[in-house]
Amino acid sequence: MNLYDKHQELLEKAIKALHERVFYAAFPEYPGSSVYGEEADKKGRGDFKAHLNTNFEEMHTDEPESWVSDEVSPYLQEPLNIKYPALSVDTLISNAKKARESWRKVIPEDRAGVLIESLFGMQNRFFEIAYATMHTTGQGYMMAFQASGPHAADRALEAVAAGFEELKRFPAQTRWDKPMGKYNLVIDKTWHAVPKGIGLVVGCSTFPTWNSVPGLYASLITGNPVIVKPHPGAVLPIAIVVSEIRDALRENGMDPDICQLAPDTFDHLITKDLAENPAVKLIDYTGGSVFGNYLEELRSKTVFTEKTGVNSVILHSAQNIDKVAANLAFSICLYSGQMCTAPQNFYIPDSGISTPEGQVSFDDFAAKLIEQINGLVDNPKAGPFVLGAIQNARTCDRVNGISKLGGKVLLESREIENPMFPKARTATPAVVVVEASDKDKYSEELFGPIALLIRTGSIEESVALAREMAENHGAISCGAYTTDPDVREMIAEEMSLAATPVSFNLVGGIYMNQNASFSDFHVTGGNPSGNASFTNPEYVIKRFTWVGHREPATV
Amino acid sequence: MNLYDKHQELLEKAIKALHERVFYAAFPEYPGSSVYGEEADKKGRGDFKAHLNTNFEEMHTDEPESWVSDEVSPYLQEPLNIKYPALSVDTLISNAKKARESWRKVIPEDRAGVLIESLFGMQNRFFEIAYATMHTTGQGYMMAFQASGPHAADRALEAVAAGFEELKRFPAQTRWDKPMGKYNLVIDKTWHAVPKGIGLVVGCSTFPTWNSVPGLYASLITGNPVIVKPHPGAVLPIAIVVSEIRDALRENGMDPDICQLAPDTFDHLITKDLAENPAVKLIDYTGGSVFGNYLEELRSKTVFTEKTGVNSVILHSAQNIDKVAANLAFSICLYSGQMCTAPQNFYIPDSGISTPEGQVSFDDFAAKLIEQINGLVDNPKAGPFVLGAIQNARTCDRVNGISKLGGKVLLESREIENPMFPKARTATPAVVVVEASDKDKYSEELFGPIALLIRTGSIEESVALAREMAENHGAISCGAYTTDPDVREMIAEEMSLAATPVSFNLVGGIYMNQNASFSDFHVTGGNPSGNASFTNPEYVIKRFTWVGHREPATV
Repeated sequence: MNLYDKHQELLEKAIKALHERVFYAAFPEYPGSSVYGEEADKKGRGDFKAHLNTNFEEMHTDEPESWVSDEVSPYLQEPLNIKYPALSVDTLISNAKKARESWRKVIPEDRAGVLIESLFGMQNRFFEIAYATMHTTGQGYMMAFQASGPHAADRALEAVAAGFEELKRFPAQTRWDKPMGKYNLVIDKTWHAVPKGIGLVVGCSTFPTWNSVPGLYASLITGNPVIVKPHPGAVLPIAIVVSEIRDALRENGMDPDICQLAPDTFDHLITKDLAENPAVKLIDYTGGSVFGNYLEELRSKTVFTEKTGVNSVILHSAQNIDKVAANLAFSICLYSGQMCTAPQNFYIPDSGISTPEGQVSFDDFAAKLIEQINGLVDNPKAGPFVLGAIQNARTCDRVNGISKLGGKVLLESREIENPMFPKARTATPAVVVVEASDKDKYSEELFGPIALLIRTGSIEESVALAREMAENHGAISCGAYTTDPDVREMIAEEMSLAATPVSFNLVGGIYMNQNASFSDFHVTGGNPSGNASFTNPEYVIKRFTWVGHREPATV
Repeated sequence: MNLYDKHQELLEKAIKALHERVFYAAFPEYPGSSVYGEEADKKGRGDFKAHLNTNFEEMHTDEPESWVSDEVSPYLQEPLNIKYPALSVDTLISNAKKARESWRKVIPEDRAGVLIESLFGMQNRFFEIAYATMHTTGQGYMMAFQASGPHAADRALEAVAAGFEELKRFPAQTRWDKPMGKYNLVIDKTWHAVPKGIGLVVGCSTFPTWNSVPGLYASLITGNPVIVKPHPGAVLPIAIVVSEIRDALRENGMDPDICQLAPDTFDHLITKDLAENPAVKLIDYTGGSVFGNYLEELRSKTVFTEKTGVNSVILHSAQNIDKVAANLAFSICLYSGQMCTAPQNFYIPDSGISTPEGQVSFDDFAAKLIEQINGLVDNPKAGPFVLGAIQNARTCDRVNGISKLGGKVLLESREIENPMFPKARTATPAVVVVEASDKDKYSEELFGPIALLIRTGSIEESVALAREMAENHGAISCGAYTTDPDVREMIAEEMSLAATPVSFNLVGGIYMNQNASFSDFHVTGGNPSGNASFTNPEYVIKRFTWVGHREPATV
């Protein structure tokens, strides 16, 4: 049985799910032994530890030009000292050019087969990837497992499914038969989905697989070889994925250089050299806006970005304000606000929030939110695991220096103890009140656990500001609380015009930070927070070109 | 019966045709009385003449800020003196913003209904549009009728069909139901295809409707109001189309400013002011590469271009070399080489072209081609009608000054007499031999009736040069003649990598210049000749953003 036959049913289910947008997951998100077996976690932890202080040999790179290492565990605050084989930009490009010649000729069915096979290879290593993710990003265990493992694999499958569907949307050949009166003009036509060229995937430090595999698999399914340039501080999780792709390719007689890893170091970053190389035609990027804007402006490249944004929460009215505060406190604390979907700006009318028990004043809501944050942070069985650790020391500097913003600091950030990792770099959320008129204070992303409570004159002002922030500075997510259908409609309308998805009235076990493969589009591509979306049709069709040839029929 | 019900069957056929890519046409291309009635041509001619020296009142523009006129008939070489109502850029933008509020809320079915209705309004005026096209572009009657009338309407319908299909590819709402073990997480989700903003369509002087209506209808079907900025020298054909759209909107209770005409003059061009306005989010452009590149680089705009290119013919071997020469001579003469798909560079190996009767030398083929060109040009029943007139006097200057190129001029351009229009501006094809080594001589578009015969060392060199030209300077079409399957495969492969469609072995009544709605993608978008393609999915989906909102289910 070939790999397409092996995975065809899964692929078809994934394509169906994409269009129905109901719940679907191919890879179980629960890391329990009932799903993954008794030994899986232990083995994964051991496999991770075995990488420490060694050369990462799984790329099977012939003669690496150097070995590079720059990862530091946010939990241990010491180097992982894993060395990755590095090649020069010229060698990477030359390998990719060679690999392109064979890969572009592989039919979509066989590409899909080998790519899905690689996801099952990845699945065998979900726990190892989880520990690798914890010790590069600072994520808590559960998030590290889910986001870097099953959720990332689902997002990758989603990209494969979307790409496969688009590659099949036009026939490979047809006969065009035009009645001309006395005779017919008969032309045989063929259509070719021509891959654009070499793809470059530039990873980020906080979600090294989740944010990188959609572009990686989207470029691959559409026939482009890919060079993965991880963030120097978060290499291991994606290195494992790349090695699984290379193994799947090699085991099926294909050139492993269809997918290469291009590790670099903070001292000598190679992203620009790769991005500006004329053979690189596709770039997927997650990271800061300055570099993202530079990439978007490169001529003759197709660039997919997820950059920074200012996510809003609009508070108007609620059935149960304590549940709202609890839900938002969790959203703020989750991975210490280091998610691109974390809320930052909370717009609260000076008149407060309507509830069945009457108005909850601005100050009372602030107090409830802070109480919920403290309750979570100070719960030793929850806080350390929900907050995780801080990936980058500069995030701590930002949070600790928040008083410089000029607002009224209601809650200062502090460190908490992690029972498993005494040296973990931690920072709890800071909560600051600013006035709506002080727009400069809240119109940029303050990455990390920072909540700004913005006092507005009315719900209309709140919505207008949230829309303006999204349109001018980008937004990936938005939360809104209202029990009034007209206000709900206004928020839905206004935020949709700023291309920002709204999560309404979330309470309980679902948070605005989260989004689901096959259902929620991640980033819309329609505001400055990024120009691409996991995974709408645009995300895959821009990676190849439809070319038709034709010739008069001879029989 | 509403308009969607009225046109639903047609729309469904059009969507089906798009995917089957077999012959399909909704609007008959034959201008005979058997199709359009005895009086149609006469009435169209009269309607055209009635426009001359008058104000074009059909826009029903309240209080135009000025009346502008700059059209000159290439057949009469005198001004048409039709005055169009002009509004300031501010007024146009303000009208479009207002129109946007209602248009974006019209459901896709109703948008499709009214847009298709407008195409039947356009159909009632195909003959008037044909004469308007002749006397602005210089096209011959048959081309003016077909290209500006039925073929343009088919391309517009194609854009409507493609847009409608994409708007319907995801559900308006779903319920997402995730098993969580002890309970289910149930979320109601809605998806919105949010139009990007105001569309601007910038027309060209040679195909004022055919090149403009795809972008116009693509932006409209996806909910964007459109401002059409015609070329100052070719306003009337598209003015008629815009007035039909406005009438259809008005008659169905919608704001006519959903589609506005923005005429200007050579002395005071307003394209940049419109393009740079922040409210303009979509730009469709046909024209020169310098301005096209400027538009493509505008930040925060989605830009669709068709620019210039260097189209190649690759000659290797043929069954009947005389038929090849005749076919290519026609391609060169058709509308005097003023088509974006006209061939310019003919790559012929120094060793000649293989035929069943032996090698036809480079010089012998050149002689055959020239003989065929002269035979067509000098045939008074064919030449004037196939060549038409020259739209722009600078094209004549270019052709007449071709000796400055430095090649060996085998055939000089000259004027021919048009029996109906003694003052017509005409220029017959020039044929020039250049050497493959003189790359600078043939690496840019020489717009007009100019054929360069390029002497190469081998078929491999021919193909490499054709690919290089397409990759570096753009190509919209390519012709190739070979009876060798391996050579055919090589050409198909190499040109597809340059995103250039190849017409193989065309002889008889079909030409590389032509392409068919619903079947041939026009421009691939994958080389410098343009970044967009009529009509692939990318052409429509980039005009709106998918935004999803969600909320926990309450029932």
